[in-house]
Amino acid sequence: MRRYCFGVDLGGTTVKLGLFDLDGDIVDKWEIPTVLDNAGTKILPDIARSILQKMDARGMDREDVLGVGIGAPGPVDSEGTIYGAVNLGWGTFNLKKELQSFLNMPVEGGNDANVAALGEMWQGGARGYKDIVLVTLGTGVGGGVVVGGKMLPGAVGAAGEIGHMHVEDRETERCNCGNYGCLEQYVSATGVVRLARRKLAADERPSVMRRDGLSAKDVWDAVKADDPLALEVAEDFGWYLGKALAGVASVVNPETFVIGGGVSKAGGILLDYTQKYFRQYAFSACRGTLFTLARLGNDAGIYGAARMVLD
Amino acid sequence: MRRYCFGVDLGGTTVKLGLFDLDGDIVDKWEIPTVLDNAGTKILPDIARSILQKMDARGMDREDVLGVGIGAPGPVDSEGTIYGAVNLGWGTFNLKKELQSFLNMPVEGGNDANVAALGEMWQGGARGYKDIVLVTLGTGVGGGVVVGGKMLPGAVGAAGEIGHMHVEDRETERCNCGNYGCLEQYVSATGVVRLARRKLAADERPSVMRRDGLSAKDVWDAVKADDPLALEVAEDFGWYLGKALAGVASVVNPETFVIGGGVSKAGGILLDYTQKYFRQYAFSACRGTLFTLARLGNDAGIYGAARMVLD
Repeated sequence: MRRYCFGVDLGGTTVKLGLFDLDGDIVDKWEIPTVLDNAGTKILPDIARSILQKMDARGMDREDVLGVGIGAPGPVDSEGTIYGAVNLGWGTFNLKKELQSFLNMPVEGGNDANVAALGEMWQGGARGYKDIVLVTLGTGVGGGVVVGGKMLPGAVGAAGEIGHMHVEDRETERCNCGNYGCLEQYVSATGVVRLARRKLAADERPSVMRRDGLSAKDVWDAVKADDPLALEVAEDFGWYLGKALAGVASVVNPETFVIGGGVSKAGGILLDYTQKYFRQYAFSACRGTLFTLARLGNDAGIYGAARMVLD
Repeated sequence: MRRYCFGVDLGGTTVKLGLFDLDGDIVDKWEIPTVLDNAGTKILPDIARSILQKMDARGMDREDVLGVGIGAPGPVDSEGTIYGAVNLGWGTFNLKKELQSFLNMPVEGGNDANVAALGEMWQGGARGYKDIVLVTLGTGVGGGVVVGGKMLPGAVGAAGEIGHMHVEDRETERCNCGNYGCLEQYVSATGVVRLARRKLAADERPSVMRRDGLSAKDVWDAVKADDPLALEVAEDFGWYLGKALAGVASVVNPETFVIGGGVSKAGGILLDYTQKYFRQYAFSACRGTLFTLARLGNDAGIYGAARMVLD
């Protein structure tokens, strides 16, 4: 009786775990700390132990479990090889086989952003669709591509790295990745604040954004309050993200874009500005691509990880 | 005994047809004219008749044929629906089912550029790879994406429309598609000539490119002859194509790019200029993506069409 699957979302400080039935309903959800000692060698045994303990507590056998999916913060290819995870101290090895050796159950592995895209497709903002691109606007900008209902990992697990698409030829500051003019420099949480600060420095008009500790939320709140400078920042934001996603649509032509991450809490207004410029730059056949907000928040990773097991 | 498959490459003036064995060796190759009368309604019956005649002439039964693949000049989705083909006078219908009804054999259908990518993967420049992007630099710029050995058609068959990625914010002339600053405006055959003419108009230095009827081949010949202005045009070309393909790599992360089409006859020098800027703009994990020239020329379409049948 294989009635359940586990989804694991491995982060730099916390591991989120979820137990799901095969219809995609969450049965249980818990967290354990990510122990980074000894170059991260304790992480996978800790995860395995936590899953086996949960099964024990619930009186579940291995026969009840279809498998375990795991999303990790590094590039993972279609074979389950992870090409390093800086935040965990990991080098290159086969994530899938390694966790499998501790669990003695089927394991699937993927990059966390790609896995989250699968989660949003399964039970989130893109439910009912099979060709989607998730864009996560957080501290950085991540992304995941799902084609025909399956994750697209890419040759070295780097598919969906939309945050590092080049969108500005005139940029003079470096992105964290070392390049100049990456999308992440404009539409991440810090990117939005940076756009606002540049606008404020170049313009003398009064603005509610003229304050210490300005956050991306403050900027979007100012947009909603019709602050003239904030409205211009929203146009800049939409121009960068819309232009970049028009390029993404020309490559993989998804049915829908799903926008998630902390910045997306600004809501539908963020989609409006993005779609305005998306339509301007998109190839005609892609102009009708849908846009929607992510719905699973921080749970997208465990949903997607569990979903990997079902294929 | 299913030992053969047919590949059909449907163009605006000619239909190319090929008979292949299942190892990918071409057994026969021929052409028929594309008859555009009556809104293109004769095209598929003509193709079916030509295939059946060929089978008759070779003493082949339907049992000898695994199926027929066809690439068509319009967007085709994963179900075989073509969303119009302007050059043929076609509207929207199921290409696959329609041709199947005339042939009574299994049929697969795809967009011509996507199908050509599959051909280059099977028996061309990307033989041995499974995750590739083909870029065709001809009168226009087309493209096709292959993931895990299969074509990526996109939600409405518009995946791989790389020619209409936006790459230049300062452009004041419209692309044929109606947008401004599309890749096609700089790296197609006419695009290369346009880059050269702009350079010649803005610079008074002598150049072998100062002549009537300048072609893309003339420009690349001038590059090879170390003409100073032509060398600058090659840098511009490489900047546009390299920058665009860095964006493509961030989305689908292929193992290799395959560059084909008339302009690519310039050879390896074109790859050198492209890779120089690709490496500058690519996300670190994608920087090692390979570049190779297409090898099948005008036959890529029939190879790829035949390959579709084998899955």
